[in-house]
Amino acid sequence: MDRSNVPPPVTQVLDAASSWLPRRMSEVEERLAALVGGHGGRLAEEAGATLAAGGKRLRPLLVLVCAGREAGAEAVRAASAVELVHMATLVHDDVLDAAPLRRGLPTVVARAGRPAATAVGDLLLSRAFAELAGGGAGASRRVALLASASVGLAQGELAQRRDAYDLSITAKRYLERCRLKTARLFECACLIGDGADPGGAEGEALASFGREIGLAFQLLDDVLDVAGPAQRTGKARGTDLLDGTVTLPLILARDREPQLAEVDLRALDPTTAERICSRIEATGALGEVREDARARVETAKTVLAAPGFDAERRSLLTMVADGVVERYA
Amino acid sequence: MDRSNVPPPVTQVLDAASSWLPRRMSEVEERLAALVGGHGGRLAEEAGATLAAGGKRLRPLLVLVCAGREAGAEAVRAASAVELVHMATLVHDDVLDAAPLRRGLPTVVARAGRPAATAVGDLLLSRAFAELAGGGAGASRRVALLASASVGLAQGELAQRRDAYDLSITAKRYLERCRLKTARLFECACLIGDGADPGGAEGEALASFGREIGLAFQLLDDVLDVAGPAQRTGKARGTDLLDGTVTLPLILARDREPQLAEVDLRALDPTTAERICSRIEATGALGEVREDARARVETAKTVLAAPGFDAERRSLLTMVADGVVERYA
Repeated sequence: MDRSNVPPPVTQVLDAASSWLPRRMSEVEERLAALVGGHGGRLAEEAGATLAAGGKRLRPLLVLVCAGREAGAEAVRAASAVELVHMATLVHDDVLDAAPLRRGLPTVVARAGRPAATAVGDLLLSRAFAELAGGGAGASRRVALLASASVGLAQGELAQRRDAYDLSITAKRYLERCRLKTARLFECACLIGDGADPGGAEGEALASFGREIGLAFQLLDDVLDVAGPAQRTGKARGTDLLDGTVTLPLILARDREPQLAEVDLRALDPTTAERICSRIEATGALGEVREDARARVETAKTVLAAPGFDAERRSLLTMVADGVVERYA
Repeated sequence: MDRSNVPPPVTQVLDAASSWLPRRMSEVEERLAALVGGHGGRLAEEAGATLAAGGKRLRPLLVLVCAGREAGAEAVRAASAVELVHMATLVHDDVLDAAPLRRGLPTVVARAGRPAATAVGDLLLSRAFAELAGGGAGASRRVALLASASVGLAQGELAQRRDAYDLSITAKRYLERCRLKTARLFECACLIGDGADPGGAEGEALASFGREIGLAFQLLDDVLDVAGPAQRTGKARGTDLLDGTVTLPLILARDREPQLAEVDLRALDPTTAERICSRIEATGALGEVREDARARVETAKTVLAAPGFDAERRSLLTMVADGVVERYA
């Protein structure tokens, strides 16, 4: 696979399983290109841009690592389907935010307009299920896992919109939303390629690993939105604030500096948003959120001690978990 | 089931199979209410409005009739899933058109705003696949059929946006778009509950029945947008024109009155759109489109002569086919 785009933690995992993992990841890349390109002209052009923008491919990596080196074509299929769902949510998020850029490249909505981008998101989502349904034994289980995660994503999005601009929301409510919006797809990625019974010991360990690193990932992402810098994140500081999205850094900062609870989020402009970011930072809330994320990563690594994990999976998943923190270090 | 909302052709079919069909349709209704209502507070409120607005429930009816009187819970599940996908497209269409009303009631986008409505559409779509995946034997086949139809819907939507405002498109291209946007889900509805091999004689007959009545349905819908009246359709004449959607009535009228090809669709206001509708009507194009639709309904009825159709299914499907025309008579 082309590694020019791949962040260091992923490279490390690929190197550690160089006899099988890079090949599988390349198969996922080819599969995604075929699925997105196979719908002719304009879709290839538009969704192709989303695809080409790449991203970390963290979810397919999780699918393949959790599935293990013995897994074959079904794991590649599952990894592709999970990434398609993730791409669909990115495309729809960009429609809602009218975002011009993602990872430094024009978004689908910027290239093609709102109606086409909405349809592209629907297409990617539908294609994900078509991909799983075309698989062999266990396809229904995989569809059930992905559909449930995808329902969660939409519920999380609804919760986020419902809570928008509300400075009184609790940390608990914020975490429930992150669980739906982010962690459920990570859980699904960990379970979908493996075949473990989600209720069994191995399945529960995988789900809990996915959930904790998913939450850590989201927490650190929310820290980054406050901490910047823009050249690192590809967007200005405080975009969450400008969207009315109240995240844990603000919730904790508000408890430390009650005046922050008085801010009218609807009245923010980019300059004021930057200033609020600095006020959040000054309370020390970011350190607390980073600590929470690190603790979750430690919990995630602990569950790998459960029976059913061979040494290779345990070692690779530990690297993935550390990579989530490292990426934001 | 509550029949206050059910159009006469559907009532006729229900009466003709009163020993089993109304009960199954009620089960679909209950299932839909549970699926949409089961996501708590605001979704129930918003998607509940879409559900309550009801609609013809033509697609679930097709699923159940094609599945036959022996079919059980799996057919109800499939019927619900097909309707959920249909509802998802309505919700997203309304987002794109910023439509205030559907069937005389406020749309989800009007009640909840664009972001929430986009998420509601994603949720309904995901829920459809979760519903199928939770089923028994044959679930993968059903997921594959629905996913393929759902991919088609999105492709059709993309095609419609690509062709928007283009007065030079051909009738062939228009029909391809209708096939994707409308007929594919009808085909799926006919196949999904039955278990027939889509490539076998019965499967091909069912698919072709669904395709032809789906196309007839769309053709007559497009006639209605030109012919009105608004109190019948719940929207003003010429809304397709105002959206830039070039349909068969305009394509045929343009060939008869070349000056119509010179109209700048981007510059239309509602009054001018009404006037164009009258000019289309004056060419006699509507009669030709209605004739095309009727011919398709006849073709649909002819394929029911294929082996594999018992007398009851043949008779009920004939009623459904006639109902598609009757509804617009």
